[in-house]
Amino acid sequence: MKNNKIIELEMGGGGKKSEELIGSIRNILSVKGKWQNTKDDGAVYDLKNLWTSNVHNGHSMSTSKLVFTTDAFIVDPLFFPGGDIGKIAICGTLNDLSVMGAKPIGISLSIVIEEGFLQSDLEKIISSIQDISKKTSVPIVTGDTKVTEKGKIDKIEITTSGVGLASKIISNDGAKAGDDIIVSGNLGEHAVALLAKRFNYQTKIKSDCQPLICEIQSVSKYLTSCKDPTRGGLSAVLNEMAEKSKTKFVLEEKTLPYKKETVAISELLGIDVFSFPSEGRFVATVAKKDSQKVIGILKKYNKSARIIGEVQKGQEVWLKTKIGAVKKIEVPRGKLIPRIC
Amino acid sequence: MKNNKIIELEMGGGGKKSEELIGSIRNILSVKGKWQNTKDDGAVYDLKNLWTSNVHNGHSMSTSKLVFTTDAFIVDPLFFPGGDIGKIAICGTLNDLSVMGAKPIGISLSIVIEEGFLQSDLEKIISSIQDISKKTSVPIVTGDTKVTEKGKIDKIEITTSGVGLASKIISNDGAKAGDDIIVSGNLGEHAVALLAKRFNYQTKIKSDCQPLICEIQSVSKYLTSCKDPTRGGLSAVLNEMAEKSKTKFVLEEKTLPYKKETVAISELLGIDVFSFPSEGRFVATVAKKDSQKVIGILKKYNKSARIIGEVQKGQEVWLKTKIGAVKKIEVPRGKLIPRIC
Repeated sequence: MKNNKIIELEMGGGGKKSEELIGSIRNILSVKGKWQNTKDDGAVYDLKNLWTSNVHNGHSMSTSKLVFTTDAFIVDPLFFPGGDIGKIAICGTLNDLSVMGAKPIGISLSIVIEEGFLQSDLEKIISSIQDISKKTSVPIVTGDTKVTEKGKIDKIEITTSGVGLASKIISNDGAKAGDDIIVSGNLGEHAVALLAKRFNYQTKIKSDCQPLICEIQSVSKYLTSCKDPTRGGLSAVLNEMAEKSKTKFVLEEKTLPYKKETVAISELLGIDVFSFPSEGRFVATVAKKDSQKVIGILKKYNKSARIIGEVQKGQEVWLKTKIGAVKKIEVPRGKLIPRIC
Repeated sequence: MKNNKIIELEMGGGGKKSEELIGSIRNILSVKGKWQNTKDDGAVYDLKNLWTSNVHNGHSMSTSKLVFTTDAFIVDPLFFPGGDIGKIAICGTLNDLSVMGAKPIGISLSIVIEEGFLQSDLEKIISSIQDISKKTSVPIVTGDTKVTEKGKIDKIEITTSGVGLASKIISNDGAKAGDDIIVSGNLGEHAVALLAKRFNYQTKIKSDCQPLICEIQSVSKYLTSCKDPTRGGLSAVLNEMAEKSKTKFVLEEKTLPYKKETVAISELLGIDVFSFPSEGRFVATVAKKDSQKVIGILKKYNKSARIIGEVQKGQEVWLKTKIGAVKKIEVPRGKLIPRIC
């Protein structure tokens, strides 16, 4: 970080500039301890560290890895078709654990509230969190609540952290040439629902915000890599997975998981649909021999689950268009829409 | 929560109104799962859950409890004598784990930054976090960074969560009649250092902000209850400990752990010194037979460690003044100074 520079809004969008900001923070933080150096959102600690070798010798824990993750949410609007900031906050953290193959066991909830915020709105937000907590049987186990003066924060900010347990970690660097690329459903509907209010258009599309625990656990043993396309959308996550896996991702345009209306709205707004975030979908790679089975299972949860392309030797992310041309899909750059996830 | 009500600034101060707000949130969040129902800031999960009984039968894990905690920091000023928001954020979470008897193993770091924030200031804050991380050998293992539009947040907000391991949990409800009440050093100096800038007075006092890992671990086996006097100061934590332990706390005014200058500044500002927060001190109870030994150990870290009173049968917190009168020490009510911890 150079000294006269300032933080720019684009650094929070999930694109190239975000990577630079996060990279500069990571460079300063050098203590690693006993945690595994994964390239994922969550950190992994092997609980077998706690046992002397003779104690666990010959035995095995069914779930021996602790996964730990965190996410901050400063969403605008707070309430939208299909959810609110509370629902995104809990789902986002549950999903970050789930895409790593972990079973979430507990969530922390930290809330900063602007003085003057309606208690009834707070109650709605907390109730949304409780709904998901109940549905998934993952408790909110600890928290913090701060109130700040008028104008010092825009209404409310929520940070959720989560801990989960896993027997095997699914990393986002495990894609192999020959794997199929799959999605768990249509993408970008979270963006469509949130942008509707800000750009004042009518849509029946609701946010896709939901927990992914069951879907992912039902197929996790088949996944070679997995990630949820939130900030920066499909283009950001696929580029990350391709780069970390040292492979090339080739998508088929005819199978792309966007509703017509989602594409139409992206064109209307002049925003690349590939950068539209989702809050309840995942992208994964699966060995070709398993992909039909996996899609069969996932279709029970969402009929739009499908194969969207293939992992090949090489690098970068490419789109094969319907007319047979190929087009590179870049990491989103420049001004992305802030505060929608 | 009634529907037409708004969130008031006093609800974030650490006093009676804070308890009401937090209570109303807790009432909605009812899912408990396998976590122990402790009355502390952190949540406790027994890792022995992970083993089938025959596997750990006859053996024991030295540290079998996972402790999980979170805290949000929206401090003003960001930089102050003795630290900055980064140092408070990491120390606060390390200390929340430490006062429960846990050894911190990893911290998550979530940052929300206002567009236009100086990169060099961010670098200073992250470096402070790194200093404490290095000194304590507790790594920052996962994080999130968001950037928001100008005016949507006041400069920077940091939320840290932490996980730690413990063999035995020290709770804040374990005080017994006959125990001595001890503090690890003089209190309130964090408040003095931060308020200096806001109320424009000169002081040589620096914030007491520091990690408490070593101090607490060196005496933890003797502590019957423990807590760090942050928001709401000594009066808030002692009232909490007395209430949860169903005991009466009696303090001796002549031994009270405040520097003369701290008391003078509290009088100047008209703020009860007992509500002044610290960010690197703890209050604990210890069986009388152990208290001299404990103070002896703690004095190696801080010469001001001392016994300040006694736990008795009864309820509430009382102060025996130098002239022999007794005065009730109440939980702080009404307007407390926000955003100093």
